[in-house]
Amino acid sequence: MAGVFLTLEGLDGAGKSTQARLLAAFLEGRGIGVRLTREPGGGLPEVREVLLHGKALSPEAEYLLFSADRSEHVRKVILPALQEGLWVISDRYLDSSLAYQGYGRGLPLPWLLEVAKGATLGLKPHRTFLLDLPPEEALKRVKDPDRLEGLGLAFFGRVREGYLRLAEAEPERFVVLDATRPTEALQAEIQRHLLPLLP
Amino acid sequence: MAGVFLTLEGLDGAGKSTQARLLAAFLEGRGIGVRLTREPGGGLPEVREVLLHGKALSPEAEYLLFSADRSEHVRKVILPALQEGLWVISDRYLDSSLAYQGYGRGLPLPWLLEVAKGATLGLKPHRTFLLDLPPEEALKRVKDPDRLEGLGLAFFGRVREGYLRLAEAEPERFVVLDATRPTEALQAEIQRHLLPLLP
Repeated sequence: MAGVFLTLEGLDGAGKSTQARLLAAFLEGRGIGVRLTREPGGGLPEVREVLLHGKALSPEAEYLLFSADRSEHVRKVILPALQEGLWVISDRYLDSSLAYQGYGRGLPLPWLLEVAKGATLGLKPHRTFLLDLPPEEALKRVKDPDRLEGLGLAFFGRVREGYLRLAEAEPERFVVLDATRPTEALQAEIQRHLLPLLP
Repeated sequence: MAGVFLTLEGLDGAGKSTQARLLAAFLEGRGIGVRLTREPGGGLPEVREVLLHGKALSPEAEYLLFSADRSEHVRKVILPALQEGLWVISDRYLDSSLAYQGYGRGLPLPWLLEVAKGATLGLKPHRTFLLDLPPEEALKRVKDPDRLEGLGLAFFGRVREGYLRLAEAEPERFVVLDATRPTEALQAEIQRHLLPLLP
């Protein structure tokens, strides 16, 4: 596997997709082949609709749908791209589920990780950029009425806390960034962290 | 939980939905309230389409979709009906996944059971009627081109074998019936097995 797998994580509104696009452009400018992708929907686009605009689901059903999508995403998109030597940038991956369905909605982490073994085949990102944002700020930034965003401040507070604990547990993989900083400054910091990995 | 939970299992073409309907009519004739349901689609109807008519999925993604549907099915349909005192008859349930994705497609049973803990909350049927059919006969009976049915004789042979092993492991729950017998004879046998449970 010659490629590099990068993920962007953080609350809704943290700027993940913007940073992902800027990072893709930067890497392509350096002559690196990039595959920009996202979850949910990276594996099973039909599932994105059910998850973001469907009726309220139990946390287990929600997590299992995310995991089905992730299974396909890993096998049909991420692994093939890595095997081609591309750099894969995914806007969200397993850490989103651990933070949202685990810390946010209260599902036990051991069960989430057990399910994830079969879904991800154990594939972990080389680096994960956590765009850390206070929950008040996340709620202010988000405008569209996705279901998750109806869950309120306490929920977003738990998700943020969860992300920070995940980052603490794997400091060699996670880079925690203050997402209230300007877009360009954040991007420069992401690029700086990737310098040692560049060819 | 005052109700009774019954499932029908077996290869495609074994006559599960016919037997389920006949059984529902029999019970209703005895003044018993019945909830007739099925998988996939009992919890998340949108998922039935993806599973039966979508593109070829990895076995893990397939199982996770079935499990998401089952999570909703258990919580929103089966458990509420049982709590109302109804008899629930489901055309397929967890044993289908163990037979098809486990024995048929080769996923490890321990992982399937671990995922199922969160999906089913541990809910097991009181009785499971396995309509046992030789795979040659199942393939002859099935006409519509669902994806699963493209998998051929060897696959159906493994699924049948899997069902029989599951039944062997839980003889108090499973009733194995020869599905090549006439519809009415099969139904009479199912009813006979339920007599001890009738009010």
